[in-house]
Amino acid sequence: MNSHSLHQLLTSVASGMTSVEEAAESLARLPFENIDYAHIDHHRSLRKGFPEVIFGQGKTPEHIIGIMEKMCANEKVVMVTRIDAEKANAVLAKIPDAKYYSDARMLIHSKGEIPNQGRGKILILSAGTSDIPVAKEAQLTAESMGNDVNTVFDVGVAGIHRLFHYRRQIEEASVLIVVAGMEGALPSVVAGMVSRPVIAVPTSIGYGVSFGGLTALFAMLNSCSSNVAVVNIDNGFGAGYMAAMINRI
Amino acid sequence: MNSHSLHQLLTSVASGMTSVEEAAESLARLPFENIDYAHIDHHRSLRKGFPEVIFGQGKTPEHIIGIMEKMCANEKVVMVTRIDAEKANAVLAKIPDAKYYSDARMLIHSKGEIPNQGRGKILILSAGTSDIPVAKEAQLTAESMGNDVNTVFDVGVAGIHRLFHYRRQIEEASVLIVVAGMEGALPSVVAGMVSRPVIAVPTSIGYGVSFGGLTALFAMLNSCSSNVAVVNIDNGFGAGYMAAMINRI
Amino acid sequence: MNSHSLHQLLTSVASGMTSVEEAAESLARLPFENIDYAHIDHHRSLRKGFPEVIFGQGKTPEHIIGIMEKMCANEKVVMVTRIDAEKANAVLAKIPDAKYYSDARMLIHSKGEIPNQGRGKILILSAGTSDIPVAKEAQLTAESMGNDVNTVFDVGVAGIHRLFHYRRQIEEASVLIVVAGMEGALPSVVAGMVSRPVIAVPTSIGYGVSFGGLTALFAMLNSCSSNVAVVNIDNGFGAGYMAAMINRI
Amino acid sequence: MNSHSLHQLLTSVASGMTSVEEAAESLARLPFENIDYAHIDHHRSLRKGFPEVIFGQGKTPEHIIGIMEKMCANEKVVMVTRIDAEKANAVLAKIPDAKYYSDARMLIHSKGEIPNQGRGKILILSAGTSDIPVAKEAQLTAESMGNDVNTVFDVGVAGIHRLFHYRRQIEEASVLIVVAGMEGALPSVVAGMVSRPVIAVPTSIGYGVSFGGLTALFAMLNSCSSNVAVVNIDNGFGAGYMAAMINRI
Amino acid sequence: MNSHSLHQLLTSVASGMTSVEEAAESLARLPFENIDYAHIDHHRSLRKGFPEVIFGQGKTPEHIIGIMEKMCANEKVVMVTRIDAEKANAVLAKIPDAKYYSDARMLIHSKGEIPNQGRGKILILSAGTSDIPVAKEAQLTAESMGNDVNTVFDVGVAGIHRLFHYRRQIEEASVLIVVAGMEGALPSVVAGMVSRPVIAVPTSIGYGVSFGGLTALFAMLNSCSSNVAVVNIDNGFGAGYMAAMINRI
Amino acid sequence: MNSHSLHQLLTSVASGMTSVEEAAESLARLPFENIDYAHIDHHRSLRKGFPEVIFGQGKTPEHIIGIMEKMCANEKVVMVTRIDAEKANAVLAKIPDAKYYSDARMLIHSKGEIPNQGRGKILILSAGTSDIPVAKEAQLTAESMGNDVNTVFDVGVAGIHRLFHYRRQIEEASVLIVVAGMEGALPSVVAGMVSRPVIAVPTSIGYGVSFGGLTALFAMLNSCSSNVAVVNIDNGFGAGYMAAMINRI
Amino acid sequence: MNSHSLHQLLTSVASGMTSVEEAAESLARLPFENIDYAHIDHHRSLRKGFPEVIFGQGKTPEHIIGIMEKMCANEKVVMVTRIDAEKANAVLAKIPDAKYYSDARMLIHSKGEIPNQGRGKILILSAGTSDIPVAKEAQLTAESMGNDVNTVFDVGVAGIHRLFHYRRQIEEASVLIVVAGMEGALPSVVAGMVSRPVIAVPTSIGYGVSFGGLTALFAMLNSCSSNVAVVNIDNGFGAGYMAAMINRI
Amino acid sequence: MNSHSLHQLLTSVASGMTSVEEAAESLARLPFENIDYAHIDHHRSLRKGFPEVIFGQGKTPEHIIGIMEKMCANEKVVMVTRIDAEKANAVLAKIPDAKYYSDARMLIHSKGEIPNQGRGKILILSAGTSDIPVAKEAQLTAESMGNDVNTVFDVGVAGIHRLFHYRRQIEEASVLIVVAGMEGALPSVVAGMVSRPVIAVPTSIGYGVSFGGLTALFAMLNSCSSNVAVVNIDNGFGAGYMAAMINRI
Repeated sequence: MNSHSLHQLLTSVASGMTSVEEAAESLARLPFENIDYAHIDHHRSLRKGFPEVIFGQGKTPEHIIGIMEKMCANEKVVMVTRIDAEKANAVLAKIPDAKYYSDARMLIHSKGEIPNQGRGKILILSAGTSDIPVAKEAQLTAESMGNDVNTVFDVGVAGIHRLFHYRRQIEEASVLIVVAGMEGALPSVVAGMVSRPVIAVPTSIGYGVSFGGLTALFAMLNSCSSNVAVVNIDNGFGAGYMAAMINRI
Repeated sequence: MNSHSLHQLLTSVASGMTSVEEAAESLARLPFENIDYAHIDHHRSLRKGFPEVIFGQGKTPEHIIGIMEKMCANEKVVMVTRIDAEKANAVLAKIPDAKYYSDARMLIHSKGEIPNQGRGKILILSAGTSDIPVAKEAQLTAESMGNDVNTVFDVGVAGIHRLFHYRRQIEEASVLIVVAGMEGALPSVVAGMVSRPVIAVPTSIGYGVSFGGLTALFAMLNSCSSNVAVVNIDNGFGAGYMAAMINRI
Repeated sequence: MNSHSLHQLLTSVASGMTSVEEAAESLARLPFENIDYAHIDHHRSLRKGFPEVIFGQGKTPEHIIGIMEKMCANEKVVMVTRIDAEKANAVLAKIPDAKYYSDARMLIHSKGEIPNQGRGKILILSAGTSDIPVAKEAQLTAESMGNDVNTVFDVGVAGIHRLFHYRRQIEEASVLIVVAGMEGALPSVVAGMVSRPVIAVPTSIGYGVSFGGLTALFAMLNSCSSNVAVVNIDNGFGAGYMAAMINRI
Repeated sequence: MNSHSLHQLLTSVASGMTSVEEAAESLARLPFENIDYAHIDHHRSLRKGFPEVIFGQGKTPEHIIGIMEKMCANEKVVMVTRIDAEKANAVLAKIPDAKYYSDARMLIHSKGEIPNQGRGKILILSAGTSDIPVAKEAQLTAESMGNDVNTVFDVGVAGIHRLFHYRRQIEEASVLIVVAGMEGALPSVVAGMVSRPVIAVPTSIGYGVSFGGLTALFAMLNSCSSNVAVVNIDNGFGAGYMAAMINRI
Repeated sequence: MNSHSLHQLLTSVASGMTSVEEAAESLARLPFENIDYAHIDHHRSLRKGFPEVIFGQGKTPEHIIGIMEKMCANEKVVMVTRIDAEKANAVLAKIPDAKYYSDARMLIHSKGEIPNQGRGKILILSAGTSDIPVAKEAQLTAESMGNDVNTVFDVGVAGIHRLFHYRRQIEEASVLIVVAGMEGALPSVVAGMVSRPVIAVPTSIGYGVSFGGLTALFAMLNSCSSNVAVVNIDNGFGAGYMAAMINRI
Repeated sequence: MNSHSLHQLLTSVASGMTSVEEAAESLARLPFENIDYAHIDHHRSLRKGFPEVIFGQGKTPEHIIGIMEKMCANEKVVMVTRIDAEKANAVLAKIPDAKYYSDARMLIHSKGEIPNQGRGKILILSAGTSDIPVAKEAQLTAESMGNDVNTVFDVGVAGIHRLFHYRRQIEEASVLIVVAGMEGALPSVVAGMVSRPVIAVPTSIGYGVSFGGLTALFAMLNSCSSNVAVVNIDNGFGAGYMAAMINRI
Repeated sequence: MNSHSLHQLLTSVASGMTSVEEAAESLARLPFENIDYAHIDHHRSLRKGFPEVIFGQGKTPEHIIGIMEKMCANEKVVMVTRIDAEKANAVLAKIPDAKYYSDARMLIHSKGEIPNQGRGKILILSAGTSDIPVAKEAQLTAESMGNDVNTVFDVGVAGIHRLFHYRRQIEEASVLIVVAGMEGALPSVVAGMVSRPVIAVPTSIGYGVSFGGLTALFAMLNSCSSNVAVVNIDNGFGAGYMAAMINRI
Repeated sequence: MNSHSLHQLLTSVASGMTSVEEAAESLARLPFENIDYAHIDHHRSLRKGFPEVIFGQGKTPEHIIGIMEKMCANEKVVMVTRIDAEKANAVLAKIPDAKYYSDARMLIHSKGEIPNQGRGKILILSAGTSDIPVAKEAQLTAESMGNDVNTVFDVGVAGIHRLFHYRRQIEEASVLIVVAGMEGALPSVVAGMVSRPVIAVPTSIGYGVSFGGLTALFAMLNSCSSNVAVVNIDNGFGAGYMAAMINRI
């Protein structure tokens, strides 16, 4: 339930189309619904402008299906993150309208077109080809939340002229997401070029002292450019969500 | 030099008030100025909407004075961060117009009033009384960059009714900065209440396994709320800067 | 052997029902029994009010069977923790009376009903659906030790109104176990609501800088609420055991 | 304000001794009081059975005095932890009734005798002489919360017969606090001897790979005895608080 | 080649049994032999009293076979450590006289009985049943190097009376090896009972903050008993080797 | 495209062999080529004297094939690092002229003989047999970049006379690469013998506190010999590349 | 009290020189003496062949004096470790017969000559001049325990010919202590030269990734030579104690 | 003693200018000289082309003076690193010809001009003003070893146009040293611009998750540019030494 459908419901009651009893029952579900293994937060669309997102890791397919079935009835978009192909197939067997994106490991169920709700464009840059899955997760998230998103992949600092080729696109974006593994240097360089907020996403690409992305994370937190804030390693979803929030102000 | 003074200069040339030679000399300084121990980035106001900020740690008072003298000639606001009282006094002896804020360890030199450039209000919350210095650094930074800033201190999760008392202020802010040490739980709770971007700042307050703020940092990066991005430990300056950037979109 | 069966034995000797030789043999086994690869601590029921629990990890099925056979002869309840399905099946082939709980990875053999030995109720809360297996391990342990246990799952801080819905249950519990991964914030919030001891259990749910539960652990140890003590990551068993001990004072 | 003084207030209103206006003003302060740099949680005595405790680290003497003055008016016992001698003296100059305990680095202000509220005895054991300050912090905390506390110091595992000498005292305690640095082995051994909850407190005593108490902490979390839960390094206060909560069930 | 066979060779030359050419060829191999992927250190028996031991991890079966074939020609005992069953079978197909010990993951080739070369007895204690594989590796190593070895398994500190039952055996050993995972407390307790050197071996048994044995390692290095020295995690081989060296002084 | 082929192209234009249009098209590809998932840096041969190297980890076979096809058209040598056998086979099915080196996990495509471009010899030493795969990666890289390379394997410090046997070869090399796992001591010893730069490569060989090569890395960075610089763990490729750069000065 | 003085006491009783009451009182103190802040383990000389050693860190001068006064009455040698000059002076004012060694930070009180109790010689090697204080602590400890000790300082691996100059001394020692900071390579090289046990002592000398000795510690635990066991960082005392135990077998 | 002075000595003997006895005595000192607390490696100039360098940390002024006096007699240049002002003054009182550089914390004693021994120029770049002390240490070292050295300071990636201004100088250097703290991104960018070896030096400048330079170190080791090798944190000396070695090939 979101702000719009709440208005619709109340208008419908006012006009006599919906009985008070029906409305009460509907609103009773508003705060949350306890299905034993989960407390679905139906309130979240109202409170945060976007419904709860299902974190797939550590949940059984049965849990995911149960939660989705409750949510799909009430929400325009339902997203599951960190869900592998095997679990996704088990879910799709029950909820065939959803769509699975294997590189981003996301499952999305949406009803109709998503209207654009952002002020400007979100630009997603990745340092390497291997960082694309995380960048894709950010892209799908921001698009599902109603944003216009562009992407440029594989423009890391080892050949920095590739990045400067996109200077105009970079300067025109209203929010930037920069995805990088290894030494995680790209966000600092990009943030030095613009007066816009940069969301940095460290990835687990690298080996040895990349420590599964920890080095990139710490490098980004130490950025000598100040318009950088950081999300968890490989958290493309969080970056897309945060960028959408910023783009909506 | 910022976008406005660039226009003034060019208009002045167009009108014959300034000779081409004078303008050329002035613009020659635009990209940066090499004073041996520093390359002052005069370009930054144009490129990023705000001049370079001087990181005081590890610099001698002489370095700081030399850089400030060059910058104060060209910029409306010049900030020095991470500068202790002793160094600040040495600088103030040479640049008496600057002002030192001992709790935030900042030195600020500004010419005249700073016009409001933000869309909405920035709200800064701190979990404890001991986190106030970091929150103050964020406040001074965001205010110096032309934002309307409110603060609420000491509303940590051990007595969560204190936080809920400020629900309206929290919901009305356009960007939130949440400062917390120890277990760093406050940003998750706040972010769960709003549909706005939350910049989380871990502080080094705590002992034992707080690891000088590392635990709070990691907790914030793991937030189960998605509208949270994080800056370095005790980095009030970065949080204020990032919030200002977001508030300007 | 527990305190009750010791009394029975001695009474039986006093009445002539059991010969001194038989009693001696029986008591000889009291301190421990050496079966080469293990020293079974038969003394533990007497000393600690509950028999030794078998830690399944790193033991072969043969080891587990051997130890269980000795213990089942003497104890009302025998528990094996951290035992995967494959090993459990090998054990069940020999000891079919035991029961395997796959989500909690526990194998339990009990003779008859377990009498309630606790003063009040133990309440187990989990932050997410993915934390349920650890919560279940705590529940099974506390119940096997004779406690009345309630559970509420998926009430994490990102939608804190769900937690407050259970305020009465929370306030009425005599001991609380709070299970959480990611940023591990739930125990602080719960402990701030009650005057009862809270056992916090960090879980390995999360990714990136959750470090397999380490961040949640450290956050809990840094709790700004003081009525919190912590057990090892994913150690639902330890939490259940500790809660049972507290509930029995 | 605690449960008892609330009753007194209401009775006083009922009897006409206190006017409704006076009572209202008094109760208005109940949830918390905002003194700009702190939100004093007057509610806490009611909710948790003990008033808020002031964490001295990172607070100025002025902050501490300001908070204490507000609290001392309402509470029977006010404690400040982690306060060094210099700060304590500054506070004592303003609040001379308080008492400073230099080894435990605590400052305590109490009105009259504290009634015993515990079921049994709390026993505090330390592994070494160097661990005594932490043990003392636990002792002062538990005593201030109305408990009967015994202590035995310097009974570490390198000469384990010293520990066994106190077997009776150990077995008779209702809750045990075990304080140890270095390898942190003592809680495991003690917990193996009793059927009571053991709160383990790691200390920063040691050098090299003691890592300021981290090794002792991890050892205690890995205890092969199950009736052990752990608090932060050097957190004698937390251990005393938790033990008091347990002893009150 | 060891000291004894060197004497035999030289005596044989002196008596005319071996030609100078044959002896020269034989001795030419003494320092080492280069077989391209390895430099076999034939000198080591002379220098260290025991031949080189083959570290199986990271070597192909072909490498191991090649090295063993060269060594078996010259040495009475050849040991391979850290070799899994699959590789071992590949080696056994070529060198059927060797024997594989699956729990200790060792492959040993020996010619005839190994004479006792130690002064006293080596005693190996393990804290748990799960630590037995590491203890077995120590046992096989020390026995192969000519020592009289006893073992007592599963006598950890959670039921410390089991350990004290073996007090006499413990006091009579000339060197002790103590193997423990989890909190690693056993070596401190044992070392406190004897005036003999204790070699402590941390194992990777445990979970959560056992960090694969790191906690046990650090606990042992912090032992409050001084007659303890430590080897790497799970390094039963190193402990057995070191104990043999000590027992030979 | 490298410096030589650029000259050829321009000469060909000058002589009329190549039309201006053809040359323009060819040069247009010079800075980089965007194939959606990658920005191929054709400029790199000109700028750095060697083409971009494809990092195989995290890329799909399709990505690798796509990038190789573009690069093989322009470059004399194309290398893929960190590519496992399965992916390599998928690539070889499309690009059969390439050659796979399974121990070094490299795939190399080269046209004709590679001319020697180095000043002196590069010598690669490994501490153990298990370190050979990393040493091989360094060797293949340096040879593909036109260097004369020698190798000596398994000369670790436990039998240091083996190393001294190669003293002359060591002293005659112009650059040395020293590969070692475990305690990583070999580079210090080698660097103490020569007046040449030593590139140290830590490997992940070892167990327990080798931490997958971290201990060797840190030991090498702490070398008491000063002519040592270090690359990432298992980064044979980087060491070979760096040595080639040094040998070309 | 040691084994010899126990015999003397009992003989004296047998001969009537000492009354039963006097002997009883004397023996009553045998297990330990409780002086409130310490439990002095008078039993330790009997059990371990050497009295308890006082760990100075974290103890007040009053504590140390109190413990020493009790021990000096009963023991031939009393040692205090980790005691700084200021504390030592406070102790010496009360116990002037003791002697302070400032580089080793030890205070030793002994009565008469210490007889040699070792089988062979202990040799202590240090890698650098900066490691000498730790080496001296080992030397004083071993000498106080009745051993013949030699030292060779500053023979690190950067100029390995210096070490080989002492080959004979190295080969003749019965136990070796090798002290090194930085990369900690020396113990591996020394252990490769001898068939004797080597006790390795990491020191905190170094900077950056030496991590206060952690790198040297881990390098030593990973030694490719097997006759190495390790003590805590800077623990010269432990190394000397362990070497004395080994030398006495 | 270096290669040249060895030749002089031998020629002098040949011509009868020096007696055989004098030469013998002189050469006897060649391998090393034992002055009890140090083994001075006089051999090092011959072996490594540059004399031993004295690591000041952890040595007393007396140690440093003693070592310098021996070395100054034989060497053209003697350097002490990591020596603070107080120790330096104590040394200068005895050896007034030496010169102290306080920012680089180095003390250098040289006889006459140092001839240029390098092939090309060494260029040292620093990311910030605060990194200058480390850069200076590298500069002094490389100059003392006979190299032509240029420096450019404060050209970090937050304003990357400053770096590109020096493109020509960067491309013309034969070896580059790049010094950076915080996120340590500069070496990757520089290495991407050149075909020369880059020695990266992480500095401890930064705060929070810079971990005293560890983040910069790890970022540099993860560089996506391959012509980068790394030295220890703040190790300007090592970088200068390594660059000198490379520049001499």
